[in-house]
Amino acid sequence: VVFIMAPLITLTTDFGERSPYVAVMKGVVLSLNADARILDLSHLIPPQDVRSGNYFLATAVPYYPPGTVHVAVVDPGVGTQRGILLAEVAGQFVLAPDNGVLTGLFERHPPTTVRRLTEAKYWRPTVSATFHGRDIFAPVAAHLSLDPRPALFGVPVMEWVRLPGEPYRVEGERVVGSIQAIDHFGNLISNIPAAAVPSAPSSVTVGGRDVPLCWVRTYGEAAAGELVGLVSSDGSLEIAIVNGSAAARLDIEAGAAVAVEL
Amino acid sequence: VVFIMAPLITLTTDFGERSPYVAVMKGVVLSLNADARILDLSHLIPPQDVRSGNYFLATAVPYYPPGTVHVAVVDPGVGTQRGILLAEVAGQFVLAPDNGVLTGLFERHPPTTVRRLTEAKYWRPTVSATFHGRDIFAPVAAHLSLDPRPALFGVPVMEWVRLPGEPYRVEGERVVGSIQAIDHFGNLISNIPAAAVPSAPSSVTVGGRDVPLCWVRTYGEAAAGELVGLVSSDGSLEIAIVNGSAAARLDIEAGAAVAVEL
Amino acid sequence: VVFIMAPLITLTTDFGERSPYVAVMKGVVLSLNADARILDLSHLIPPQDVRSGNYFLATAVPYYPPGTVHVAVVDPGVGTQRGILLAEVAGQFVLAPDNGVLTGLFERHPPTTVRRLTEAKYWRPTVSATFHGRDIFAPVAAHLSLDPRPALFGVPVMEWVRLPGEPYRVEGERVVGSIQAIDHFGNLISNIPAAAVPSAPSSVTVGGRDVPLCWVRTYGEAAAGELVGLVSSDGSLEIAIVNGSAAARLDIEAGAAVAVEL
Repeated sequence: VVFIMAPLITLTTDFGERSPYVAVMKGVVLSLNADARILDLSHLIPPQDVRSGNYFLATAVPYYPPGTVHVAVVDPGVGTQRGILLAEVAGQFVLAPDNGVLTGLFERHPPTTVRRLTEAKYWRPTVSATFHGRDIFAPVAAHLSLDPRPALFGVPVMEWVRLPGEPYRVEGERVVGSIQAIDHFGNLISNIPAAAVPSAPSSVTVGGRDVPLCWVRTYGEAAAGELVGLVSSDGSLEIAIVNGSAAARLDIEAGAAVAVEL
Repeated sequence: VVFIMAPLITLTTDFGERSPYVAVMKGVVLSLNADARILDLSHLIPPQDVRSGNYFLATAVPYYPPGTVHVAVVDPGVGTQRGILLAEVAGQFVLAPDNGVLTGLFERHPPTTVRRLTEAKYWRPTVSATFHGRDIFAPVAAHLSLDPRPALFGVPVMEWVRLPGEPYRVEGERVVGSIQAIDHFGNLISNIPAAAVPSAPSSVTVGGRDVPLCWVRTYGEAAAGELVGLVSSDGSLEIAIVNGSAAARLDIEAGAAVAVEL
Repeated sequence: VVFIMAPLITLTTDFGERSPYVAVMKGVVLSLNADARILDLSHLIPPQDVRSGNYFLATAVPYYPPGTVHVAVVDPGVGTQRGILLAEVAGQFVLAPDNGVLTGLFERHPPTTVRRLTEAKYWRPTVSATFHGRDIFAPVAAHLSLDPRPALFGVPVMEWVRLPGEPYRVEGERVVGSIQAIDHFGNLISNIPAAAVPSAPSSVTVGGRDVPLCWVRTYGEAAAGELVGLVSSDGSLEIAIVNGSAAARLDIEAGAAVAVEL
């Protein structure tokens, strides 16, 4: 007996679950490859928020096995001249609009090849101007899962859109960065690596406001409701409220400035 | 080597994800057919909103391959005398309460047969009055995935509940319809086919209010925040705000009237 | 042809869907066992709400087939000295933090064995202080799905954390209990078994407030907007508003007291 594993196709979108768009994409994939295994990563990327999608993909994709096909549709430019990329990253495949949503992933794992989709014979016969998820992404993902040769689908490109960088920087005794993501718990995940903050800082400001923090290893080391600083699970400086939402209490949105005095 | 594909069972409900109801249904299916492939379509149909469920199914189901078993539970009449239908539509199977939730799907794809479930031997031994998703829909879907003969499960019927039609109509130079759905982005999807509006209209009213629109092919052709009219991905007239929510800005709910002056 | 079923791993968390945490866990599982079938039960357990997770698992897990691996991460104590349990319950496996989240499940189905995870060789090489879902739960679930011998992963324990009991009690003609869960519809599910209320009560108070109820078998027996009492799908006393939210109308949260006069 040889067990043939069904190919894995993941979906990451800003489509929500209330509308039929995700269900439609799944149907298109399964109509072309009834055997595909479809895995939802998230459909709650905030609408049109390329930066959030970028953070999500850079964080999640590296954990997947080679051969996985990731489909990412956060695509405010759908139907315009923006291209659609098919990248090979650490043996995986990623389909995404060429709008910068792969910036962080490509920084962590430089792609082996990046192609721009050109071969319309793998698309649905009629391509709408507003739903390339259904008409291009889903059928290409299905065909790729059946025949994993990216060269079939497009031509190599050397240039693609990158999100403007907002790296952290060290200014003497001060480290300056920003909140790159706010998680479901309201925890504030900065872009400052923990390694840049070797000891408990003397002060931290977030969004221009001084925030007194108790420095802990994990949430349970402080009392419920306490404001804490810690190392996030991806190794960056995180600000949280134990059993509460730091984002709500401090009224902070993604992109807010963070400054740390060593 | 012969690869035996696991049968595909999709779930569409208004149960949300916070409550254990969907998880219970999945467990019931898998206890009867451990090999079933379960696919979530949506669990965020608004509570008891048969009209939203109807729009969702009419839009999504046609994209699935023959043999798929769709389970749709938006069922305010659970436990009353309303029947449960098992329909064959384009080679697929659909289980849904007989409350009109299949009206739009049946209009697009007239069913080959429609049955009313009668054979209680395929149900759970005890049927509650409030959770037929667990006690009838899930076990019938599982048995059907093992033995796809609908005649086992019920008797043919020629009558079923239809939602009162609200078709669009043309009145001289005016086309009148309604908003049939509001998507996750807040885009307003009307029931007026784009073909009924051959050129950019001189004016559009939504919910009795004049709405000045910029006519575009896709969102990215106008600036963020602009109110646009376009052809939706299913070919009907759509009103949207670029990178924003038209439903929120115009304070419109599904069912609102739309009038277009040609 | 022998069909080899992929092992089933379910996920129940309070991680939401907006953050990449669930996607990361799925990637870790699939990187160790590319063949695992991953099933989402819920990621909307309210943040850090062990009592809600407890209700969810006690309700859902019993419906699954033997051999299923359930991963439950509602874990405010992550990274502290709290243990992680691997329990065998009705032929299934459950991984959960030792914080009481399995109390109700163990009451309904006393576990065959309960172990505490000790064998770090099945964990990720570096274990963070804040994301054991990724670093311990996911890899142990994957390894367990490949080799279902729980003894590999930890040592038997005889003691574990139990949530303080809040059983209902009968006081003469009065039955007193509490709202153990509020579902997605806003229905109030009490911990009072229907059997303890043999006939329609003369009065019901919820949260200290007298609530006039119409007693019905199912929602559709009363008019939309009416406040009804009925037997919930798991056999307990439930208070609901037909096509509406009793929790919102009565302003009730989980844990509220319920008193029934027979």
